[in-house]
Amino acid sequence: MPSISEKGRQMPASPIRKLVPYAEAAKKRGSHVIHLNIGQPDIKTPKVALDAVRNHNIEVLAYSMTEGSEIYREKIAAYYAKKDIHVTAKDIIVTTGGSEALSFAMGTIMDAEDEIIIPEPFYANYNGFATAAGVKVVPIASSIDTNFALPPIAEFEKLITPQTKAILICNPGNPTGYLYSKEEIEQLATLVKKHDLFLIADEVYREFTYEGSQHYSILQVNGLEEHAIVVDSVSKRYSMCGARIGCIVSKNREVIQTAMKFAQARLSPPTFAQIASEAALETPQEYFDEVIEEYVSRRNILISELKQLEGVKVAVPQGAFYCVVELPVADADDFAQWLLEKFEMDGNTVMVAPAAGFYATPGLGKNQIRIAYVLEKDQLVKAVQILGRALKEYNAK
Amino acid sequence: MPSISEKGRQMPASPIRKLVPYAEAAKKRGSHVIHLNIGQPDIKTPKVALDAVRNHNIEVLAYSMTEGSEIYREKIAAYYAKKDIHVTAKDIIVTTGGSEALSFAMGTIMDAEDEIIIPEPFYANYNGFATAAGVKVVPIASSIDTNFALPPIAEFEKLITPQTKAILICNPGNPTGYLYSKEEIEQLATLVKKHDLFLIADEVYREFTYEGSQHYSILQVNGLEEHAIVVDSVSKRYSMCGARIGCIVSKNREVIQTAMKFAQARLSPPTFAQIASEAALETPQEYFDEVIEEYVSRRNILISELKQLEGVKVAVPQGAFYCVVELPVADADDFAQWLLEKFEMDGNTVMVAPAAGFYATPGLGKNQIRIAYVLEKDQLVKAVQILGRALKEYNAK
Ligand SMILES: Cc1ncc(COP(=O)(O)O)c(C=O)c1O
Ligand SMILES: Cc1ncc(COP(=O)(O)O)c(C=O)c1O
Repeated sequence: MPSISEKGRQMPASPIRKLVPYAEAAKKRGSHVIHLNIGQPDIKTPKVALDAVRNHNIEVLAYSMTEGSEIYREKIAAYYAKKDIHVTAKDIIVTTGGSEALSFAMGTIMDAEDEIIIPEPFYANYNGFATAAGVKVVPIASSIDTNFALPPIAEFEKLITPQTKAILICNPGNPTGYLYSKEEIEQLATLVKKHDLFLIADEVYREFTYEGSQHYSILQVNGLEEHAIVVDSVSKRYSMCGARIGCIVSKNREVIQTAMKFAQARLSPPTFAQIASEAALETPQEYFDEVIEEYVSRRNILISELKQLEGVKVAVPQGAFYCVVELPVADADDFAQWLLEKFEMDGNTVMVAPAAGFYATPGLGKNQIRIAYVLEKDQLVKAVQILGRALKEYNAK
Repeated sequence: MPSISEKGRQMPASPIRKLVPYAEAAKKRGSHVIHLNIGQPDIKTPKVALDAVRNHNIEVLAYSMTEGSEIYREKIAAYYAKKDIHVTAKDIIVTTGGSEALSFAMGTIMDAEDEIIIPEPFYANYNGFATAAGVKVVPIASSIDTNFALPPIAEFEKLITPQTKAILICNPGNPTGYLYSKEEIEQLATLVKKHDLFLIADEVYREFTYEGSQHYSILQVNGLEEHAIVVDSVSKRYSMCGARIGCIVSKNREVIQTAMKFAQARLSPPTFAQIASEAALETPQEYFDEVIEEYVSRRNILISELKQLEGVKVAVPQGAFYCVVELPVADADDFAQWLLEKFEMDGNTVMVAPAAGFYATPGLGKNQIRIAYVLEKDQLVKAVQILGRALKEYNAK
């Protein structure tokens, strides 16, 4: 029998997937499972986007331009201009989700054995894209005690080797909810310029910042033009994860020209999804205001409920819609599985994402979980009640 | 300034792209350019597919399942059963175009420095996916004099090294139009079993076979289950290239489980496109009958017109909608550029794809072009007239 690749063997399975069979078994037993584990918002997609697709008048569903339609890219540039980010259509390649933008970014700047420094905990699929590209992830730990703020620049500097090609940040962060300050971004900018590295920022949660705090993009830093690569996506912004549209943005011509070669190989991004995404740019500001308000109140209630649990520590998120929670357990993986296998309260249980899967350093995050607050508030409250009761029972075992 | 990757530098630019600026300049001068160079069919997409998207009732455009919706995969399996290919939903992962299926297939079975043998000329983007994966393409030449039939198995055997992991064929072929016979497929099957290799078949043109000739899939070969990986796509079958839906199919569990890890990293295939693709499976047989009839008559007229040109050799295609044509010129690249830069007949010129870009061996195919017959017959006739006149003028220079 022919054998699969070493790379294929090393590809990490999604950290959440492991629990899926247990969740299915729980549902078969009749338990209601509250999902705190996935980043799929329940928020409605803007009508203007869905309607644009309903009203399409396509006769031949042809390949679009490899880099995305000119007009759509111009509208994206106009969207950025409103965020004080100044780029043009030619700095943008439309991709099949932020996911493809990440994989193009890695392929464009890194070869096998090259290194990329990423503050952990981080979006678990960075591991997958890095493994697929043969690239080595070098983690740098951030701590729940500082809400996962940027680790000291000196710590980054210690990790830089001749193989280091880039630093990757997620801002605001999944799973941390941390929003980097302008100062933190500027420190990183100075560092990458000094060492001639790229700085990749995954800004797919740009729109989700709370209590008036401002998102500061790496594309706003003067003098960082040749170093900055932004990964973006419509998935969360307009609650249209199923569209599969994102983009890669850089003022570095060589980066865009090289990413274009990767893009050409796969021909074009999806056409219907581009129609939806272009129309989504017409979404009225009230939509966002309402969505943000909803997330803030979900966050507030979730955090205040969690803080009442004994032995539980929470990082207060300033952005995105996740938070990392430290539990009074030795092994959150085991606890998460136990919740699905053995626990029930009034017919309900919860599914959480053990945080170890978001760390690259073995052993870190073992007592942490990630919660996505993409559910109605009453569900969140109920979920925390269940967690509280479950923790007591689990620890009394 | 930080530098891009070696891999990025090596990524081939699309062979057709080089000519695009010349085509644009020709259009600016007022020339009408007949495009023989692209595989974008002009055939209408089935109404049932377009309507399904028009009638969607989505409120939250959520991620679909990573492997594609269960019901869609079951329907794909039912489609295959009608082609005497017996697989189940769990042998299928829905991908973002055949393109993504190719890249998953390569990642799943090959590491950097591994080798894949491909009969040339071949679909140029195989080079891109191989380069992105760090994999070495080992070409084996097929000849226009045999209509690009399978090279002798002994020639394949000579190229097998410890690094060889797979043989990749395109059936029917782009750019050759060659349809492999059952005997040729069986010879390949025996070879890959003997040497414990994978056999990947890109069958995206399965539906396009002419004069009653039957497509024989590698999934129909008994005993090849652990070796066979099929790449498929809705792009050409239903003239819906812009959907971006395809699939990877294998009875080898380890292959599918590993490809799933690559699929998980990118989350899911596009939702609207899956709606269209699922509905497209309801396309009535008359649609295909008409389409095939149209392609056959286009092919016939194209070939008979081309054969009248002095010094021109054509491989008669039995499938797909391309043919490779040998011209009485030393350098088809130069000729193609000259057509766009210097030539005009009654205000028209043609754009062709120089075939050298479809060969991996330097120097091969230099006097060949690929023609895609995805235009109306009168356009094809006119295009050949232009080619004929142009050849005379070019050679008289
Ligand atoms: C931080 C981050 N980046 C990128 C993505 C990829 O999203 P998509 O491919 O849907 O744009 C996600 C999705 O959850 C994410 O959380
Ligand atoms: C032989 C072959 N394979 C694969 C593809 C990829 O097509 P898609 O990604 O649109 O399915 C093409 C497109 O032209 C092709 O010709």
